[in-house]
Amino acid sequence: MGPDDIPDIVISRLPVYLRALTRMQAASQEITSSKELGDRLGISSAQIRKDLSHFGEFGKQGTGYQIKFLVDQLRRILKVEREWDVALVGAGAIGHALAHYDGFYDRGFRIMLIFDSDPAKIGTHINGFEICDVARLGELIQRHSITLAMVAVPADAAQAVTDELVKAGVRGILNYAPINLTVAENVHVQYIDPVVHLQRITYYV
Amino acid sequence: MGPDDIPDIVISRLPVYLRALTRMQAASQEITSSKELGDRLGISSAQIRKDLSHFGEFGKQGTGYQIKFLVDQLRRILKVEREWDVALVGAGAIGHALAHYDGFYDRGFRIMLIFDSDPAKIGTHINGFEICDVARLGELIQRHSITLAMVAVPADAAQAVTDELVKAGVRGILNYAPINLTVAENVHVQYIDPVVHLQRITYYV
Repeated sequence: MGPDDIPDIVISRLPVYLRALTRMQAASQEITSSKELGDRLGISSAQIRKDLSHFGEFGKQGTGYQIKFLVDQLRRILKVEREWDVALVGAGAIGHALAHYDGFYDRGFRIMLIFDSDPAKIGTHINGFEICDVARLGELIQRHSITLAMVAVPADAAQAVTDELVKAGVRGILNYAPINLTVAENVHVQYIDPVVHLQRITYYV
Repeated sequence: MGPDDIPDIVISRLPVYLRALTRMQAASQEITSSKELGDRLGISSAQIRKDLSHFGEFGKQGTGYQIKFLVDQLRRILKVEREWDVALVGAGAIGHALAHYDGFYDRGFRIMLIFDSDPAKIGTHINGFEICDVARLGELIQRHSITLAMVAVPADAAQAVTDELVKAGVRGILNYAPINLTVAENVHVQYIDPVVHLQRITYYV
């Protein structure tokens, strides 16, 4: 089954399942059920079974899921059984937080390059990473064959940075700038904007 | 029409429309169309018209949308025509980035209180905000009648902090901790986890 056959809303839940299962695994739990997982996530067990059924048969009625097996399968499906090198563009407050974030390395990602345009920052280090001149972005991304990037620059700079990234071979972008990016169809963008999330909350509160 | 009648996926797009329209407004643009907005957002114009039709009649076929009017309506629908005070729990790297983020104030939010449990941080300031002892969380949140919070503490502390927040009257939480929270039905939680977003990207790349 090709990636395009499965609804994006299903794909969006898989990393959440993987995260919860990994936590169970870290607590030495070996077996779970769609009921337990659903209770933990606030999702119905039927939804979880239906989501997973897109990808095969992962458990048996009555005996539940082997957590290690399911974790391995989800890692394979999400392609994080390998480690991805990621470029980070923007060494401001958000860039700093990302460079210090210790939740990447055991979940499939490793920041490899950090860029900024500020001469006062270029050549300095964050958490062991040297900040490189954004003018060298294309050259360095190509040299390291990097295909994933996080964009944490001001809104007005984000589209130009994105164009450079895509030109250099990047195919996936996590964008923190509060603006929608225009990219070719073969480039995948996800957005993180706290205000967008807060406004979704206030609608309901 | 009550909030529950409109699919959450529609609600999730409204802040994105508002963000794009506000940028057009800042560029002194007065009129737009569902076609132009859709091109900018990578969403079909039919989808935009359908989403907005849940809330009334905002434009006319052929003449487009008055941007100011649509911005005002979306602000009202999302309840950000007012300003919300927000508590931030956790003054680590993510908390620092949030405390310095200048994108809140003109989009409906203002950080009012910052908490941490680290004695070395309590009493110090970030961007003008004094960091308060998390032991005083309930008391201060009640005193300021705060109903929104951002949780940026380690995963193992997030549920306990959430329970305290809800007990003090918080009804909406933006959670940065990489863990699902268990809350009562009248509390709304949104999640930000860069790894969850990156894994959604790698599935497709």
